[in-house]
Amino acid sequence: MEPQRRPGGRSARVREAVLDATTAELAERGYQGLNVDSVAQRAGVHKTTVYRRWGGPEGLVADALERASEQPWPIPDTGTLAGDLRGLAELVRVGFDDPESGPVATAFVTAGMQHPDAAAALRRFYAARHDEAAVIVARAVERGEVEPDIDADEVVRLAIAPLFHRLFITHEPVTAEQARRAADVAAALARTPRES
Amino acid sequence: MEPQRRPGGRSARVREAVLDATTAELAERGYQGLNVDSVAQRAGVHKTTVYRRWGGPEGLVADALERASEQPWPIPDTGTLAGDLRGLAELVRVGFDDPESGPVATAFVTAGMQHPDAAAALRRFYAARHDEAAVIVARAVERGEVEPDIDADEVVRLAIAPLFHRLFITHEPVTAEQARRAADVAAALARTPRES
Repeated sequence: MEPQRRPGGRSARVREAVLDATTAELAERGYQGLNVDSVAQRAGVHKTTVYRRWGGPEGLVADALERASEQPWPIPDTGTLAGDLRGLAELVRVGFDDPESGPVATAFVTAGMQHPDAAAALRRFYAARHDEAAVIVARAVERGEVEPDIDADEVVRLAIAPLFHRLFITHEPVTAEQARRAADVAAALARTPRES
Repeated sequence: MEPQRRPGGRSARVREAVLDATTAELAERGYQGLNVDSVAQRAGVHKTTVYRRWGGPEGLVADALERASEQPWPIPDTGTLAGDLRGLAELVRVGFDDPESGPVATAFVTAGMQHPDAAAALRRFYAARHDEAAVIVARAVERGEVEPDIDADEVVRLAIAPLFHRLFITHEPVTAEQARRAADVAAALARTPRES
């Protein structure tokens, strides 16, 4: 479901309060512990308001992701492709490792495995993130570091997919060295002529 | 918790029946729908037997994963690194796409995001799978296709991590072409001299 959105005014303030409460609840209890009553109480709104506008936990997660994607990523600009990709991989690693943002980010991923609305929201969220990060590759093309026909999206994904694989599939910790290595592999691939 | 295991005999037959029932329930209802009562009923055993030996859904999933890892992967042997990695990536893709195995495999991954016992079981399961698949790289070294100091585990992970990333993080479909491409990237990396 698509929540109504009006810029400014009471509706926007309610949305901010409810999504702040959603984020705080996700940080404390994870997606499985998210419920409309606690969110409504924390936000100081009536629970019927939350049910009417967001439907349920999956609608809250979807809108919280929508809001999160409005906050741009601090894409690194170090002057080299490898440096920028290292910065990007480190951004992902730290984002999940941080005691404040980590539990929320983890709850978003967990929600995607449990509800199709959350999965669709994650798909949109990461599509936007990958688009933002593609500037790293565009700059490398401008500098002549890589060929113009490079698949920017693939390079971005390659720098971060191994981290997600460890965090959420094989359940292994991710070190700064592993993040660096994933970035370097993506940079090496970017410089390798593509085979047919 | 570690379930008791005695080779052969009634205990082994009970385990088979309970894990078959667990797998069938996971296929039908996913991890969130898994409960001890339904598994016990389906297996034709008393539910206290299941609670005592497996503790709960997370113990059932952990032991089902343990049993699954006893079934070896049909590791491809095509004569080239790229061919073998393509076969491996396709094995993963088809495993999640197949109407029979897909829902169970997906339920395993989902369980790992929801319970630490399941996460630990997945970590062991994939460590064993990656060990099995490393033979692909060992053969390539024997053939002189790649340098002996190659990190086999990294090459294996690289051929499959992008698929897991699509399936469970960004929630995008994975095509046979994308699986092939992930394998080719891993093969290309394996042939690229490692930078410090």
